[in-house]
Amino acid sequence: MEPTDRTRIRRGRHRAVADRSDLLALLDDALVAHLGVVVGDHPVVLPTAFAVDADGPDEGGTLYVHGSVAARWLHESAGATVCVTVTELDGLVAGRSTFHHSMNYRSAVVIGRARVVEEPAERQHALDLIVDHMIPGRAATLRPSTRKELAATAVLAVPLTEASMKARAGGPVDEPADVAAGVWGGHVPVRRVIDAPVPANDNPAGLDVPPDVRSRAS
Amino acid sequence: MEPTDRTRIRRGRHRAVADRSDLLALLDDALVAHLGVVVGDHPVVLPTAFAVDADGPDEGGTLYVHGSVAARWLHESAGATVCVTVTELDGLVAGRSTFHHSMNYRSAVVIGRARVVEEPAERQHALDLIVDHMIPGRAATLRPSTRKELAATAVLAVPLTEASMKARAGGPVDEPADVAAGVWGGHVPVRRVIDAPVPANDNPAGLDVPPDVRSRAS
Repeated sequence: MEPTDRTRIRRGRHRAVADRSDLLALLDDALVAHLGVVVGDHPVVLPTAFAVDADGPDEGGTLYVHGSVAARWLHESAGATVCVTVTELDGLVAGRSTFHHSMNYRSAVVIGRARVVEEPAERQHALDLIVDHMIPGRAATLRPSTRKELAATAVLAVPLTEASMKARAGGPVDEPADVAAGVWGGHVPVRRVIDAPVPANDNPAGLDVPPDVRSRAS
Repeated sequence: MEPTDRTRIRRGRHRAVADRSDLLALLDDALVAHLGVVVGDHPVVLPTAFAVDADGPDEGGTLYVHGSVAARWLHESAGATVCVTVTELDGLVAGRSTFHHSMNYRSAVVIGRARVVEEPAERQHALDLIVDHMIPGRAATLRPSTRKELAATAVLAVPLTEASMKARAGGPVDEPADVAAGVWGGHVPVRRVIDAPVPANDNPAGLDVPPDVRSRAS
């Protein structure tokens, strides 16, 4: 993770996180990425499932983004520079003034040239990683994808070389006069909860929830 | 919310949501937006606080995005077309095959020409909306912003005319053969929880958590 001119944190340098393990931990924790591509003359930002292969074929490791072969953004982004941003909201910061209201969060911005994954074996590998990112251990319990399924699925690979991370945690930082005025300040933690699995209606009677799915609950 | 060529859902039409009240409900529920701008020759996607004024000065209502006057993306996006995407993850869908794994979510994509809010009164109004979006009722309990604070804060306004929404809910839709094979299918609900407020260390002793902050907890 070497910040370049494009990913170097210009604002809020004190919120920049330099440690690659923090970046990978965030990418492991978060479930949705926002992919930005330029379509025609304007940006389009779309939510996508994703996964990381820290030892992937691209320099710095590979971030895989999932899509449909029929999606226009996918074709527009082949070979182009894209931006993948992953954000987790951790809290709301109630400062003593409008100005000092803030959010606690972790956010990673990855900028890189997108490569469409053409090779079926790499595509299957990427899809397995994406499934296991959602539900760790699930991929090994599923049949292999058919050629037709692989052909209908598109995967974009983005190198993890150009990545920056920002994070904020804790309470507000206020003007001394506002603190002295006795306005309450603090923060409200926000977290993601994963509830108990809901079986599909068409499961055979008596089929147990598999351990990988059961372990996903918070 | 009139879909144009740019926001019309091309993929997954069955997941398009046409009702403006659903769009506004998502924008009310979600706390973080991802703003996409073109900086130089590539897209940049950044997480931001935001708020909606359905009766705002822009056609279709106004989506306000918060930033810093010193941020480069802000200057790059003045007058340019930007994309603001708001996504809430509602669940993980465990299909019986890799191909039919999916996510439950609600996502809105707003594309429009960004206007930098110059007028101090509109800027204060937008900041009040952003604070109240985080903690409803909080803005009225705070002192007015100073001229210096308003000058240091930048707000971008994006019209809500070009907006599209997609949503997915429920369990997997699988191949009959995979269902018959007895693989467990279902989904795992995901939701956001807001925990009890954490007072700042420098609050005066005995200062109660105000009702607006207390009500924010789930």
